[in-house]
Amino acid sequence: MPDTKAQPVLGVKELNTYIAEVYPQIIEQFPHYRVTAVEPERVLLELGTDENHIRAGGTISGPTLFAFADMGGYACVLSHVGREALAVTTNLNINFMRKAEPGVLAGECRILKMGKRLMVFDIAITLKGDDAIIAHATGTYAIPPKG
Amino acid sequence: MPDTKAQPVLGVKELNTYIAEVYPQIIEQFPHYRVTAVEPERVLLELGTDENHIRAGGTISGPTLFAFADMGGYACVLSHVGREALAVTTNLNINFMRKAEPGVLAGECRILKMGKRLMVFDIAITLKGDDAIIAHATGTYAIPPKG
Amino acid sequence: MPDTKAQPVLGVKELNTYIAEVYPQIIEQFPHYRVTAVEPERVLLELGTDENHIRAGGTISGPTLFAFADMGGYACVLSHVGREALAVTTNLNINFMRKAEPGVLAGECRILKMGKRLMVFDIAITLKGDDAIIAHATGTYAIPPKG
Amino acid sequence: MPDTKAQPVLGVKELNTYIAEVYPQIIEQFPHYRVTAVEPERVLLELGTDENHIRAGGTISGPTLFAFADMGGYACVLSHVGREALAVTTNLNINFMRKAEPGVLAGECRILKMGKRLMVFDIAITLKGDDAIIAHATGTYAIPPKG
Repeated sequence: MPDTKAQPVLGVKELNTYIAEVYPQIIEQFPHYRVTAVEPERVLLELGTDENHIRAGGTISGPTLFAFADMGGYACVLSHVGREALAVTTNLNINFMRKAEPGVLAGECRILKMGKRLMVFDIAITLKGDDAIIAHATGTYAIPPKG
Repeated sequence: MPDTKAQPVLGVKELNTYIAEVYPQIIEQFPHYRVTAVEPERVLLELGTDENHIRAGGTISGPTLFAFADMGGYACVLSHVGREALAVTTNLNINFMRKAEPGVLAGECRILKMGKRLMVFDIAITLKGDDAIIAHATGTYAIPPKG
Repeated sequence: MPDTKAQPVLGVKELNTYIAEVYPQIIEQFPHYRVTAVEPERVLLELGTDENHIRAGGTISGPTLFAFADMGGYACVLSHVGREALAVTTNLNINFMRKAEPGVLAGECRILKMGKRLMVFDIAITLKGDDAIIAHATGTYAIPPKG
Repeated sequence: MPDTKAQPVLGVKELNTYIAEVYPQIIEQFPHYRVTAVEPERVLLELGTDENHIRAGGTISGPTLFAFADMGGYACVLSHVGREALAVTTNLNINFMRKAEPGVLAGECRILKMGKRLMVFDIAITLKGDDAIIAHATGTYAIPPKG
Protein backbone atom coordinates (compact mmCIF):
# COMPACT_ATOMS: atom_id res chain seq x y z
CA MET A 1 0.00 0.00 0.00
CA PRO A 2 1.47 3.39 -0.97
CA ASP A 3 2.00 5.96 1.74
CA THR A 4 -0.96 8.26 1.42
CA LYS A 5 -0.03 10.63 4.19
CA ALA A 6 -0.07 14.35 3.54
CA GLN A 7 3.47 15.67 3.16
CA PRO A 8 4.78 18.84 4.81
CA VAL A 9 5.73 21.79 2.60
CA LEU A 10 7.55 23.83 5.27
CA GLY A 11 10.36 22.62 7.53
CA VAL A 12 11.01 23.42 11.18
CA LYS A 13 13.16 26.47 10.59
CA GLU A 14 10.90 28.04 7.96
CA LEU A 15 7.88 27.40 10.16
CA ASN A 16 9.32 29.00 13.31
CA THR A 17 10.44 32.02 11.30
CA TYR A 18 7.05 32.42 9.64
CA ILE A 19 5.03 32.10 12.88
CA ALA A 20 7.21 34.70 14.64
CA GLU A 21 6.68 37.01 11.67
CA VAL A 22 2.91 36.76 11.30
CA TYR A 23 1.93 36.27 14.94
CA PRO A 24 4.35 38.33 17.07
CA GLN A 25 1.82 38.62 19.91
CA ILE A 26 2.03 34.91 20.69
CA ILE A 27 5.83 35.01 20.73
CA GLU A 28 5.81 38.02 23.03
CA GLN A 29 3.53 36.24 25.43
CA PHE A 30 5.27 32.89 25.07
CA PRO A 31 8.93 33.66 24.24
CA HIS A 32 9.98 30.05 24.79
CA TYR A 33 7.74 28.58 22.13
CA ARG A 34 9.17 26.62 19.21
CA VAL A 35 8.31 23.86 16.80
CA THR A 36 10.91 21.06 17.12
CA ALA A 37 9.91 18.57 14.40
CA VAL A 38 7.75 18.45 11.30
CA GLU A 39 6.90 15.08 9.77
CA PRO A 40 4.12 13.79 7.51
CA GLU A 41 0.88 14.48 9.45
CA ARG A 42 2.83 15.01 12.69
CA VAL A 43 4.34 18.07 14.42
CA LEU A 44 6.24 18.31 17.72
CA LEU A 45 6.55 21.54 19.68
CA GLU A 46 7.73 22.90 23.03
CA LEU A 47 6.88 25.77 25.33
CA GLY A 48 8.92 26.93 28.30
CA THR A 49 6.59 28.21 31.02
CA ASP A 50 7.26 30.37 34.07
CA GLU A 51 5.38 32.23 36.80
CA ASN A 52 3.50 34.26 34.18
CA HIS A 53 1.77 31.10 33.03
CA ILE A 54 0.41 29.78 36.31
CA ARG A 55 -2.94 30.07 38.04
CA ALA A 56 -4.24 29.76 41.61
CA GLY A 57 -2.62 26.66 43.08
CA GLY A 58 0.70 27.25 41.32
CA THR A 59 -0.06 25.06 38.31
CA ILE A 60 0.13 25.84 34.61
CA SER A 61 -3.02 27.75 33.65
CA GLY A 62 -5.76 26.64 31.30
CA PRO A 63 -5.25 29.60 28.93
CA THR A 64 -1.55 28.69 28.64
CA LEU A 65 -2.39 25.09 27.74
CA PHE A 66 -5.10 26.21 25.32
CA ALA A 67 -2.70 28.62 23.61
CA PHE A 68 -0.13 25.84 23.27
CA ALA A 69 -2.73 23.44 21.82
CA ASP A 70 -3.96 26.08 19.40
CA MET A 71 -0.40 26.87 18.31
CA GLY A 72 0.06 23.15 17.67
CA GLY A 73 -2.84 23.19 15.25
CA TYR A 74 -1.51 26.34 13.60
CA ALA A 75 1.88 24.66 13.14
CA CYS A 76 0.13 21.61 11.61
CA VAL A 77 -1.82 23.60 9.07
CA LEU A 78 1.00 25.97 8.10
CA SER A 79 3.56 23.16 7.77
CA HIS A 80 1.29 21.13 5.50
CA VAL A 81 -0.52 23.82 3.52
CA GLY A 82 2.09 26.61 3.39
CA ARG A 83 2.23 30.24 4.40
CA GLU A 84 -1.51 30.67 4.99
CA ALA A 85 -1.40 32.98 8.01
CA LEU A 86 -5.17 33.49 7.82
CA ALA A 87 -6.02 29.88 8.56
CA VAL A 88 -8.27 30.12 11.64
CA THR A 89 -9.43 27.82 14.40
CA THR A 90 -13.12 27.04 14.11
CA ASN A 91 -13.40 24.62 17.04
CA LEU A 92 -11.18 23.42 19.85
CA ASN A 93 -12.07 20.97 22.59
CA ILE A 94 -9.61 20.54 25.44
CA ASN A 95 -9.52 18.20 28.44
CA PHE A 96 -7.33 19.08 31.40
CA MET A 97 -6.17 15.92 33.10
CA ARG A 98 -3.33 16.57 35.51
CA LYS A 99 -1.93 19.58 37.30
CA ALA A 100 1.62 20.51 36.39
CA GLU A 101 4.12 22.96 37.85
CA PRO A 102 5.87 25.35 35.47
CA GLY A 103 8.47 23.68 33.25
CA VAL A 104 8.89 22.85 29.58
CA LEU A 105 5.71 21.64 27.92
CA ALA A 106 6.01 19.15 25.05
CA GLY A 107 3.26 18.78 22.48
CA GLU A 108 2.74 15.93 20.03
CA CYS A 109 0.27 16.84 17.29
CA ARG A 110 -1.32 14.49 14.79
CA ILE A 111 -3.19 15.61 11.70
CA LEU A 112 -6.36 13.50 11.74
CA LYS A 113 -7.72 14.94 8.49
CA MET A 114 -6.00 17.13 5.95
CA GLY A 115 -8.87 18.34 3.77
CA LYS A 116 -9.09 21.17 1.27
CA ARG A 117 -11.23 23.37 3.50
CA LEU A 118 -10.74 21.92 6.97
CA MET A 119 -7.85 20.36 8.88
CA VAL A 120 -8.55 18.34 12.04
CA PHE A 121 -5.77 17.63 14.53
CA ASP A 122 -5.21 16.46 18.06
CA ILE A 123 -2.45 17.20 20.52
CA ALA A 124 -1.23 15.41 23.65
CA ILE A 125 0.57 17.76 26.05
CA THR A 126 3.07 16.47 28.61
CA LEU A 127 5.93 17.91 30.63
CA LYS A 128 9.11 17.26 28.62
CA GLY A 129 10.59 13.93 29.65
CA ASP A 130 7.43 12.68 31.36
CA ASP A 131 4.78 10.42 29.78
CA ALA A 132 1.79 11.56 31.83
CA ILE A 133 -0.64 13.58 29.71
CA ILE A 134 -1.45 16.97 31.27
CA ALA A 135 -3.96 18.02 28.67
CA HIS A 136 -5.34 16.69 25.39
CA ALA A 137 -7.10 18.72 22.72
CA THR A 138 -8.79 18.18 19.38
CA GLY A 139 -9.38 21.05 17.01
CA THR A 140 -10.32 22.18 13.53
CA TYR A 141 -8.74 24.87 11.37
CA ALA A 142 -10.47 26.42 8.37
CA ILE A 143 -8.13 26.90 5.42
CA PRO A 144 -8.64 30.02 3.28
CA PRO A 145 -9.69 29.30 -0.32
CA LYS A 146 -6.83 29.44 -2.83
CA GLY A 147 -6.37 32.55 -4.90
CA MET B 1 -43.51 25.97 40.93
CA PRO B 2 -40.83 27.20 43.34
CA ASP B 3 -37.69 28.74 41.91
CA THR B 4 -35.14 25.95 42.14
CA LYS B 5 -32.27 27.87 40.68
CA ALA B 6 -28.93 27.85 42.47
CA GLN B 7 -28.38 31.14 44.27
CA PRO B 8 -25.13 33.13 44.21
CA VAL B 9 -23.16 33.50 47.44
CA LEU B 10 -20.77 36.23 46.25
CA GLY B 11 -21.70 39.56 44.64
CA VAL B 12 -20.00 41.40 41.80
CA LYS B 13 -17.67 43.44 43.96
CA GLU B 14 -16.57 40.55 46.18
CA LEU B 15 -16.04 38.38 43.13
CA ASN B 16 -13.85 40.88 41.25
CA THR B 17 -11.77 41.47 44.37
CA TYR B 18 -11.31 37.76 45.00
CA ILE B 19 -10.33 36.91 41.41
CA ALA B 20 -7.74 39.71 41.32
CA GLU B 21 -6.34 38.38 44.59
CA VAL B 22 -6.04 34.69 43.74
CA TYR B 23 -5.29 34.92 40.02
CA PRO B 24 -3.14 38.04 39.50
CA GLN B 25 -1.61 36.62 36.30
CA ILE B 26 -4.91 36.82 34.44
CA ILE B 27 -5.43 40.42 35.54
CA GLU B 28 -1.93 41.37 34.46
CA GLN B 29 -2.53 39.89 31.04
CA PHE B 30 -6.08 41.19 30.77
CA PRO B 31 -6.21 44.41 32.83
CA HIS B 32 -9.62 45.35 31.45
CA TYR B 33 -11.41 42.26 32.70
CA ARG B 34 -14.35 42.51 35.11
CA VAL B 35 -17.52 40.74 36.12
CA THR B 36 -20.48 43.10 35.66
CA ALA B 37 -23.45 41.10 37.00
CA VAL B 38 -24.12 38.05 39.11
CA GLU B 39 -27.60 36.51 39.12
CA PRO B 40 -28.98 33.06 39.94
CA GLU B 41 -27.24 30.69 37.47
CA ARG B 42 -26.12 33.64 35.30
CA VAL B 43 -23.01 35.83 35.20
CA LEU B 44 -22.13 38.72 32.86
CA LEU B 45 -18.56 39.86 32.25
CA GLU B 46 -16.52 42.17 30.03
CA LEU B 47 -12.99 42.32 28.67
CA GLY B 48 -11.38 45.29 26.97
CA THR B 49 -9.00 44.06 24.27
CA ASP B 50 -6.18 45.84 22.43
CA GLU B 51 -3.32 45.07 20.05
CA ASN B 52 -1.85 42.59 22.52
CA HIS B 53 -4.89 40.38 22.01
CA ILE B 54 -4.95 40.09 18.23
CA ARG B 55 -3.62 37.52 15.79
CA ALA B 56 -2.65 37.43 12.10
CA GLY B 57 -5.42 39.25 10.24
CA GLY B 58 -5.93 41.85 12.99
CA THR B 59 -8.73 39.99 14.74
CA ILE B 60 -9.10 39.00 18.39
CA SER B 61 -7.07 35.84 18.97
CA GLY B 62 -8.34 32.40 19.92
CA PRO B 63 -6.31 32.31 23.17
CA THR B 64 -7.88 35.64 24.21
CA LEU B 65 -11.39 34.32 23.58
CA PHE B 66 -10.59 31.05 25.35
CA ALA B 67 -9.21 32.90 28.38
CA PHE B 68 -12.36 35.04 28.50
CA ALA B 69 -14.62 31.96 28.27
CA ASP B 70 -12.63 30.17 30.95
CA MET B 71 -12.79 33.23 33.23
CA GLY B 72 -16.54 33.19 32.71
CA GLY B 73 -16.73 29.67 34.06
CA TYR B 74 -14.47 30.58 36.95
CA ALA B 75 -16.75 33.52 37.81
CA CYS B 76 -19.78 31.18 37.67
CA VAL B 77 -18.31 28.63 40.04
CA LEU B 78 -16.84 31.13 42.51
CA SER B 79 -20.00 33.25 42.64
CA HIS B 80 -22.21 30.22 43.34
CA VAL B 81 -19.92 28.05 45.49
CA GLY B 82 -17.80 30.64 47.28
CA ARG B 83 -14.08 31.34 47.60
CA GLU B 84 -12.89 28.04 46.13
CA ALA B 85 -9.86 29.29 44.20
CA LEU B 86 -8.79 25.72 43.43
CA ALA B 87 -11.84 24.91 41.34
CA VAL B 88 -10.35 23.83 38.00
CA THR B 89 -11.52 23.49 34.42
CA THR B 90 -11.72 19.86 33.35
CA ASN B 91 -13.10 20.40 29.84
CA LEU B 92 -13.78 23.34 27.57
CA ASN B 93 -15.15 23.24 24.05
CA ILE B 94 -15.14 26.47 22.05
CA ASN B 95 -16.49 27.38 18.63
CA PHE B 96 -15.15 30.48 16.88
CA MET B 97 -17.82 31.92 14.66
CA ARG B 98 -17.00 35.42 13.53
CA LYS B 99 -13.88 37.54 13.31
CA ALA B 100 -13.86 40.65 15.48
CA GLU B 101 -11.55 43.63 15.69
CA PRO B 102 -10.28 44.67 19.13
CA GLY B 103 -12.92 46.26 21.33
CA VAL B 104 -14.84 45.41 24.47
CA LEU B 105 -15.94 41.79 24.65
CA ALA B 106 -19.17 40.98 26.48
CA GLY B 107 -19.81 37.50 27.88
CA GLU B 108 -23.10 36.02 28.98
CA CYS B 109 -22.64 32.85 31.04
CA ARG B 110 -25.32 30.38 32.04
CA ILE B 111 -24.86 27.69 34.64
CA LEU B 112 -26.30 24.56 33.00
CA LYS B 113 -25.67 22.32 35.99
CA MET B 114 -24.63 23.25 39.49
CA GLY B 115 -23.65 19.91 41.02
CA LYS B 116 -21.65 19.06 44.13
CA ARG B 117 -18.58 17.92 42.24
CA LEU B 118 -19.02 19.43 38.77
CA MET B 119 -20.42 22.67 37.38
CA VAL B 120 -21.30 22.92 33.69
CA PHE B 121 -21.69 26.31 32.00
CA ASP B 122 -21.86 27.92 28.62
CA ILE B 123 -20.91 31.39 27.45
CA ALA B 124 -21.88 33.43 24.42
CA ILE B 125 -19.28 36.07 23.55
CA THR B 126 -20.16 39.19 21.56
CA LEU B 127 -18.71 42.64 21.04
CA LYS B 128 -20.43 44.93 23.55
CA GLY B 129 -23.52 46.44 21.97
CA ASP B 130 -23.67 43.94 19.11
CA ASP B 131 -25.81 40.78 19.01
CA ALA B 132 -23.65 38.71 16.67
CA ILE B 133 -21.95 35.86 18.54
CA ILE B 134 -18.17 35.84 18.01
CA ALA B 135 -17.52 32.68 19.97
CA HIS B 136 -19.49 30.21 22.08
CA ALA B 137 -18.06 27.82 24.63
CA THR B 138 -19.27 25.09 26.96
CA GLY B 139 -17.14 23.94 29.87
CA THR B 140 -16.93 22.00 33.09
CA TYR B 141 -15.30 22.96 36.39
CA ALA B 142 -14.41 20.43 39.08
CA ILE B 143 -15.21 21.70 42.58
CA PRO B 144 -12.80 20.72 45.37
CA PRO B 145 -14.35 18.50 48.07
CA LYS B 146 -15.41 20.38 51.20
CA GLY B 147 -13.20 20.32 54.23
CA MET C 1 -31.81 48.10 13.85
CA PRO C 2 -33.22 45.74 11.23
CA ASP C 3 -33.71 42.11 12.10
CA THR C 4 -30.66 40.41 10.61
CA LYS C 5 -31.60 36.91 11.64
CA ALA C 6 -31.49 34.16 9.07
CA GLN C 7 -35.01 33.28 7.95
CA PRO C 8 -36.33 29.74 7.56
CA VAL C 9 -37.22 28.48 4.09
CA LEU C 10 -39.08 25.33 5.17
CA GLY C 11 -41.96 25.11 7.65
CA VAL C 12 -42.67 22.44 10.25
CA LYS C 13 -44.78 20.22 8.03
CA GLU C 14 -42.44 20.33 5.03
CA LEU C 15 -39.48 19.66 7.28
CA ASN C 16 -40.99 16.62 9.00
CA THR C 17 -42.03 15.19 5.64
CA TYR C 18 -38.61 15.75 4.12
CA ILE C 19 -36.67 14.22 7.04
CA ALA C 20 -38.87 11.10 7.03
CA GLU C 21 -38.26 10.79 3.29
CA VAL C 22 -34.47 11.18 3.22
CA TYR C 23 -33.58 9.60 6.56
CA PRO C 24 -36.03 6.73 7.14
CA GLN C 25 -33.55 4.90 9.43
CA ILE C 26 -33.82 7.58 12.09
CA ILE C 27 -37.60 7.49 11.97
CA GLU C 28 -37.62 3.72 12.26
CA GLN C 29 -35.40 3.86 15.31
CA PHE C 30 -37.17 6.88 16.81
CA PRO C 31 -40.79 6.73 15.60
CA HIS C 32 -41.88 9.45 18.01
CA TYR C 33 -39.58 12.12 16.65
CA ARG C 34 -40.98 15.37 15.26
CA VAL C 35 -40.11 19.00 14.76
CA THR C 36 -42.71 21.17 16.51
CA ALA C 37 -41.67 24.73 15.63
CA VAL C 38 -39.45 26.53 13.13
CA GLU C 39 -38.59 30.19 13.73
CA PRO C 40 -35.75 32.46 12.60
CA GLU C 41 -32.56 30.81 13.92
CA ARG C 42 -34.57 28.60 16.29
CA VAL C 43 -36.11 25.12 16.04
CA LEU C 44 -38.07 23.12 18.61
CA LEU C 45 -38.41 19.35 18.49
CA GLU C 46 -39.64 16.39 20.52
CA LEU C 47 -38.83 12.72 20.88
CA GLY C 48 -40.93 10.14 22.68
CA THR C 49 -38.66 7.56 24.30
CA ASP C 50 -39.39 4.09 25.66
CA GLU C 51 -37.53 1.03 26.97
CA ASN C 52 -35.60 0.74 23.70
CA HIS C 53 -33.86 4.01 24.52
CA ILE C 54 -32.58 3.31 28.01
CA ARG C 55 -29.26 2.09 29.39
CA ALA C 56 -28.04 0.40 32.58
CA GLY C 57 -29.74 2.18 35.48
CA GLY C 58 -33.00 2.68 33.58
CA THR C 59 -32.19 6.16 32.30
CA ILE C 60 -32.28 7.53 28.76
CA SER C 61 -29.10 6.45 26.99
CA GLY C 62 -26.31 8.66 25.68
CA PRO C 63 -26.75 7.45 22.08
CA THR C 64 -30.45 8.42 22.25
CA LEU C 65 -29.63 11.91 23.49
CA PHE C 66 -26.85 12.29 20.91
CA ALA C 67 -29.18 11.22 18.10
CA PHE C 68 -31.78 13.75 19.28
CA ALA C 69 -29.17 16.55 19.45
CA ASP C 70 -27.85 15.66 16.00
CA MET C 71 -31.39 15.61 14.58
CA GLY C 72 -31.86 19.07 16.06
CA GLY C 73 -28.91 20.35 14.09
CA TYR C 74 -30.17 18.62 10.96
CA ALA C 75 -33.57 20.30 11.41
CA CYS C 76 -31.82 23.66 11.85
CA VAL C 77 -29.78 23.38 8.67
CA LEU C 78 -32.58 21.94 6.50
CA SER C 79 -35.15 24.49 7.70
CA HIS C 80 -32.84 27.42 6.97
CA VAL C 81 -30.97 26.24 3.86
CA GLY C 82 -33.57 24.02 2.19
CA ARG C 83 -33.68 20.42 1.04
CA GLU C 84 -29.96 19.72 1.37
CA ALA C 85 -30.13 16.14 2.64
CA LEU C 86 -26.35 15.78 2.28
CA ALA C 87 -25.53 18.40 4.90
CA VAL C 88 -23.36 16.48 7.38
CA THR C 89 -22.28 16.89 10.99
CA THR C 90 -18.58 17.67 11.26
CA ASN C 91 -18.38 18.10 15.03
CA LEU C 92 -20.66 17.57 17.99
CA ASN C 93 -19.85 18.13 21.65
CA ILE C 94 -22.39 16.93 24.22
CA ASN C 95 -22.56 17.27 28.00
CA PHE C 96 -24.80 14.91 29.94
CA MET C 97 -26.04 16.62 33.06
CA ARG C 98 -28.91 14.78 34.65
CA LYS C 99 -30.34 11.29 34.49
CA ALA C 100 -33.87 11.03 33.14
CA GLU C 101 -36.36 8.21 32.96
CA PRO C 102 -38.06 7.52 29.62
CA GLY C 103 -40.61 10.15 28.61
CA VAL C 104 -40.97 12.85 25.99
CA LEU C 105 -37.75 14.75 25.34
CA ALA C 106 -38.00 18.41 24.30
CA GLY C 107 -35.19 20.11 22.43
CA GLU C 108 -34.64 23.83 21.94
CA CYS C 109 -32.11 24.55 19.20
CA ARG C 110 -30.48 27.88 18.44
CA ILE C 111 -28.54 28.62 15.27
CA LEU C 112 -25.39 30.35 16.53
CA LYS C 113 -23.96 30.92 13.06
CA MET C 114 -25.61 30.49 9.68
CA GLY C 115 -22.67 30.64 7.27
CA LYS C 116 -22.40 29.64 3.64
CA ARG C 117 -20.28 26.58 4.34
CA LEU C 118 -20.84 25.88 8.03
CA MET C 119 -23.78 26.17 10.42
CA VAL C 120 -23.17 26.12 14.18
CA PHE C 121 -26.01 25.36 16.59
CA ASP C 122 -26.65 24.43 20.17
CA ILE C 123 -29.46 22.47 21.78
CA ALA C 124 -30.76 22.26 25.33
CA ILE C 125 -32.59 18.99 26.02
CA THR C 126 -35.16 18.67 28.80
CA LEU C 127 -38.05 16.40 29.64
CA LYS C 128 -41.19 18.05 28.26
CA GLY C 129 -42.73 20.30 30.90
CA ASP C 130 -39.61 20.39 33.08
CA ASP C 131 -36.94 23.11 33.06
CA ALA C 132 -33.97 21.03 34.22
CA ILE C 133 -31.51 20.47 31.39
CA ILE C 134 -30.71 16.77 30.87
CA ALA C 135 -28.12 17.32 28.16
CA HIS C 136 -26.67 20.22 26.18
CA ALA C 137 -24.84 19.97 22.89
CA THR C 138 -23.09 22.24 20.43
CA GLY C 139 -22.42 21.13 16.88
CA THR C 140 -21.40 22.08 13.35
CA TYR C 141 -22.92 21.02 10.05
CA ALA C 142 -21.11 21.36 6.73
CA ILE C 143 -23.38 22.59 3.94
CA PRO C 144 -22.81 21.13 0.45
CA PRO C 145 -21.69 23.69 -2.14
CA LYS C 146 -24.50 24.96 -4.38
CA GLY C 147 -24.92 23.51 -7.84
CA MET D 1 11.18 3.72 35.08
CA PRO D 2 8.47 1.32 36.25
CA ASP D 3 5.37 0.88 34.15
CA THR D 4 2.81 3.13 35.81
CA LYS D 5 -0.04 2.32 33.46
CA ALA D 6 -3.39 1.39 34.89
CA GLN D 7 -3.96 -2.36 34.58
CA PRO D 8 -7.19 -3.97 33.37
CA VAL D 9 -9.24 -6.03 35.80
CA LEU D 10 -11.58 -7.65 33.27
CA GLY D 11 -10.58 -9.54 30.13
CA VAL D 12 -12.21 -9.53 26.70
CA LYS D 13 -14.60 -12.41 27.35
CA GLU D 14 -15.76 -11.20 30.76
CA LEU D 15 -16.24 -7.71 29.37
CA ASN D 16 -18.35 -8.76 26.38
CA THR D 17 -20.49 -10.95 28.63
CA TYR D 18 -21.00 -8.17 31.17
CA ILE D 19 -21.91 -5.49 28.61
CA ALA D 20 -24.47 -7.78 26.94
CA GLU D 21 -25.97 -8.46 30.36
CA VAL D 22 -26.27 -4.90 31.67
CA TYR D 23 -26.93 -3.05 28.42
CA PRO D 24 -29.05 -5.36 26.24
CA GLN D 25 -30.51 -2.40 24.31
CA ILE D 26 -27.17 -1.59 22.71
CA ILE D 27 -26.63 -5.19 21.68
CA GLU D 28 -30.11 -5.38 20.17
CA GLN D 29 -29.46 -2.26 18.14
CA PHE D 30 -25.87 -3.23 17.28
CA PRO D 31 -25.77 -7.04 17.24
CA HIS D 32 -22.33 -7.10 15.65
CA TYR D 33 -20.59 -5.20 18.44
CA ARG D 34 -17.71 -6.77 20.36
CA VAL D 35 -14.57 -5.85 22.26
CA THR D 36 -11.58 -7.60 20.64
CA ALA D 37 -8.66 -6.68 22.92
CA VAL D 38 -8.07 -5.28 26.40
CA GLU D 39 -4.59 -4.04 27.32
CA PRO D 40 -3.25 -1.61 29.91
CA GLU D 41 -4.96 1.74 29.11
CA ARG D 42 -6.00 0.48 25.66
CA VAL D 43 -9.10 -1.28 24.29
CA LEU D 44 -9.92 -2.40 20.75
CA LEU D 45 -13.44 -3.00 19.53
CA GLU D 46 -15.43 -3.69 16.36
CA LEU D 47 -18.92 -3.05 15.06
CA GLY D 48 -20.46 -4.60 11.99
CA THR D 49 -22.81 -2.09 10.34
CA ASP D 50 -25.56 -2.57 7.76
CA GLU D 51 -28.36 -0.61 6.11
CA ASN D 52 -29.91 0.12 9.51
CA HIS D 53 -26.90 2.25 10.37
CA ILE D 54 -26.75 4.56 7.37
CA ARG D 55 -28.04 8.06 6.72
CA ALA D 56 -28.93 10.14 3.66
CA GLY D 57 -26.11 9.63 1.15
CA GLY D 58 -25.64 5.95 2.05
CA THR D 59 -22.89 6.53 4.60
CA ILE D 60 -22.62 5.37 8.20
CA SER D 61 -24.69 7.70 10.36
CA GLY D 62 -23.46 10.04 13.07
CA PRO D 63 -25.56 8.37 15.78
CA THR D 64 -23.99 5.00 14.87
CA LEU D 65 -20.47 6.42 15.15
CA PHE D 66 -21.34 8.20 18.40
CA ALA D 67 -22.77 5.00 19.90
CA PHE D 68 -19.61 3.12 18.90
CA ALA D 69 -17.36 5.82 20.43
CA ASP D 70 -19.43 5.85 23.61
CA MET D 71 -19.29 2.06 23.85
CA GLY D 72 -15.52 2.33 23.52
CA GLY D 73 -15.40 4.55 26.58
CA TYR D 74 -17.72 2.20 28.46
CA ALA D 75 -15.43 -0.73 27.61
CA CYS D 76 -12.43 1.28 28.84
CA VAL D 77 -13.95 2.12 32.18
CA LEU D 78 -15.46 -1.32 32.85
CA SER D 79 -12.29 -3.17 31.86
CA HIS D 80 -10.13 -1.05 34.16
CA VAL D 81 -12.47 -0.38 37.10
CA GLY D 82 -14.62 -3.52 37.12
CA ARG D 83 -18.33 -4.26 36.91
CA GLU D 84 -19.52 -0.69 37.47
CA ALA D 85 -22.48 -0.66 35.10
CA LEU D 86 -23.56 2.75 36.41
CA ALA D 87 -20.47 4.56 35.16
CA VAL D 88 -21.92 7.30 32.93
CA THR D 89 -20.66 9.54 30.14
CA THR D 90 -20.47 13.17 31.25
CA ASN D 91 -18.99 14.63 28.06
CA LEU D 92 -18.25 13.41 24.56
CA ASN D 93 -16.80 15.41 21.69
CA ILE D 94 -16.75 13.80 18.25
CA ASN D 95 -15.31 14.91 14.91
CA PHE D 96 -16.58 13.28 11.74
CA MET D 97 -13.86 13.28 9.14
CA ARG D 98 -14.64 10.96 6.27
CA LYS D 99 -17.74 9.33 4.86
CA ALA D 100 -17.77 5.55 4.96
CA GLU D 101 -20.07 2.95 3.45
CA PRO D 102 -21.41 0.21 5.74
CA GLY D 103 -18.79 -2.36 6.77
CA VAL D 104 -16.96 -3.37 9.90
CA LEU D 105 -15.89 -0.43 12.06
CA ALA D 106 -12.71 -0.77 14.11
CA GLY D 107 -12.13 1.38 17.19
CA GLU D 108 -8.86 1.96 19.00
CA CYS D 109 -9.40 3.50 22.44
CA ARG D 110 -6.75 4.99 24.70
CA ILE D 111 -7.31 5.83 28.35
CA LEU D 112 -5.84 9.33 28.71
CA LYS D 113 -6.55 9.57 32.42
CA MET D 114 -7.67 6.88 34.83
CA GLY D 115 -8.72 8.85 37.92
CA LYS D 116 -10.77 7.85 40.92
CA ARG D 117 -13.81 9.88 39.89
CA LEU D 118 -13.29 10.51 36.18
CA MET D 119 -11.83 8.55 33.29
CA VAL D 120 -10.88 10.36 30.07
CA PHE D 121 -10.42 8.44 26.81
CA ASP D 122 -10.15 8.95 23.11
CA ILE D 123 -11.06 6.70 20.20
CA ALA D 124 -10.00 6.64 16.57
CA ILE D 125 -12.56 4.93 14.34
CA THR D 126 -11.62 3.40 10.99
CA LEU D 127 -13.03 0.81 8.64
CA LYS D 128 -11.35 -2.49 9.52
CA GLY D 129 -8.22 -2.92 7.44
CA ASP D 130 -8.03 0.75 6.41
CA ASP D 131 -5.91 3.43 8.10
CA ALA D 132 -8.04 6.47 7.24
CA ILE D 133 -9.79 7.82 10.32
CA ILE D 134 -13.56 8.15 9.81
CA ALA D 135 -14.27 9.74 13.18
CA HIS D 136 -12.37 10.63 16.32
CA ALA D 137 -13.86 11.25 19.74
CA THR D 138 -12.72 12.24 23.21
CA GLY D 139 -14.92 11.63 26.22
CA THR D 140 -15.23 11.49 29.99
CA TYR D 141 -16.93 8.89 32.17
CA ALA D 142 -17.89 9.53 35.79
CA ILE D 143 -17.16 6.54 38.04
CA PRO D 144 -19.64 5.84 40.85
CA PRO D 145 -18.18 6.22 44.35
CA LYS D 146 -17.19 2.92 45.97
CA GLY D 147 -19.56 1.32 48.44
